[in-house]
Amino acid sequence: MGERQWPAKPRSQHRRFGGQNARHDRARGTPNGPVVLYGWHTVTAALSNPARRFRRLLATENALRRLAEDGITPPIAPELVRPDALAARLTPDAVHQGLIAEADPLPSPDIEELATDGIVLVLDQITDPHNVGAILRTAAAFAVAAIVTTARHSPEATGVLAKSASGALELVPIVTVQNLARGLAALKERGFLLVGLDSDAADNLAALELRAPLALVLGAEGKGLRQLTGATCDRLARLDLPGAIKSLNVSNAAALALYIASSAVA
Amino acid sequence: MGERQWPAKPRSQHRRFGGQNARHDRARGTPNGPVVLYGWHTVTAALSNPARRFRRLLATENALRRLAEDGITPPIAPELVRPDALAARLTPDAVHQGLIAEADPLPSPDIEELATDGIVLVLDQITDPHNVGAILRTAAAFAVAAIVTTARHSPEATGVLAKSASGALELVPIVTVQNLARGLAALKERGFLLVGLDSDAADNLAALELRAPLALVLGAEGKGLRQLTGATCDRLARLDLPGAIKSLNVSNAAALALYIASSAVA
Repeated sequence: MGERQWPAKPRSQHRRFGGQNARHDRARGTPNGPVVLYGWHTVTAALSNPARRFRRLLATENALRRLAEDGITPPIAPELVRPDALAARLTPDAVHQGLIAEADPLPSPDIEELATDGIVLVLDQITDPHNVGAILRTAAAFAVAAIVTTARHSPEATGVLAKSASGALELVPIVTVQNLARGLAALKERGFLLVGLDSDAADNLAALELRAPLALVLGAEGKGLRQLTGATCDRLARLDLPGAIKSLNVSNAAALALYIASSAVA
Repeated sequence: MGERQWPAKPRSQHRRFGGQNARHDRARGTPNGPVVLYGWHTVTAALSNPARRFRRLLATENALRRLAEDGITPPIAPELVRPDALAARLTPDAVHQGLIAEADPLPSPDIEELATDGIVLVLDQITDPHNVGAILRTAAAFAVAAIVTTARHSPEATGVLAKSASGALELVPIVTVQNLARGLAALKERGFLLVGLDSDAADNLAALELRAPLALVLGAEGKGLRQLTGATCDRLARLDLPGAIKSLNVSNAAALALYIASSAVA
């Protein structure tokens, strides 16, 4: 389930949050270290992404055979390794399925580059990499145009996040901003309707009049949207839940919100 | 994120899968060891559940104060402990929020006891405790009548599963069966319509005629429904996903299926 041992090198806070380059790198991995991708779907999706630059590809004999059978020609020469050598690079619960790649982070587009005919998801300090990975995967399933997230208080797009995203990291651009309120203002300027999910909101998302371009804003579990984030949204809405529990796992909430919104704006 | 150190005692396979009692215990925890509950929502939901029998309650000074402020009187005398003593009982990424309880497993009802006016979820060898916990939480949010799962190839209802369920373990009964095909047959005898989720199915779940009582059957990620499970279902259906990825994290898929189904049978 995790990728906690590799890369284990300490990261420079200065580079990480420092300037323009650090901002972009932060979206996709450590600024100096590579992005680590493991697992069949995650690595083969990356191998099929012409924008992905690889540093190393480690593969077992079985995985090499399966790549050949599937007609996948890696853009970098794979290094043949034994399964236990792959496992030794990851935590015991990580499932590598014979493939680990080291790659450069993908570039982070600017809000000004986003198309204005679809839906974007905005993540306000969602820190759990499993959840962010599952959200990316669901975002790809709903053809979301981009995910907007903050440079700080967001997990890096590597390791367990990439594994949970199951290839979606290659499909959904991640826009990293320093300041979420300013990012939301930029979306608003571009014509996006900003709808924040809030389990205490009076309005039911399914009853709201929604239209594209739409930005759905999700807060961290427990904390919810930060005050300024909520205040910057055009509308706040809740998911209508008939049962005794009124708040969902954030990736489950994202899935429902995307289902409702993509039906409404289609 | 995990509870892997405690309880660490080896478990007897004989007791675990042996007879009637082992079958019931298996649903909710180790047969001999206690169910371990940690985190504010998880423990306070258990403290509010009159059916839950406690063995120990460990609490920090802050948590005791907060329990008193919230008017919660535990049914067992809490043991005052320091935060680091709680942390030492869990994995480093587990968030205990000042509370750990040891309790007996909850009883597992039989299929014959289930109400026949709602929705049940059937889990076919979904093994990841985070996913099963998130599914439980979403099931409680949609007032699901029960979750049916197998004795083998299912995570125990303790630790990280309980934490991910965020109190839902106290709200949604878990029916544990030895053989899923026989469990499905018993549901069918009780009048349930059995709909299996399958990303390759021709029918879109939202377009199917659904009615209560309804059993939604979910398979493991990657593997999907086992052959016999799929063959036992009345219908197979997919979720209609417009994007490039056609399969979701299983808890996200469960959330969408429940949203669609509970709108249809309400």
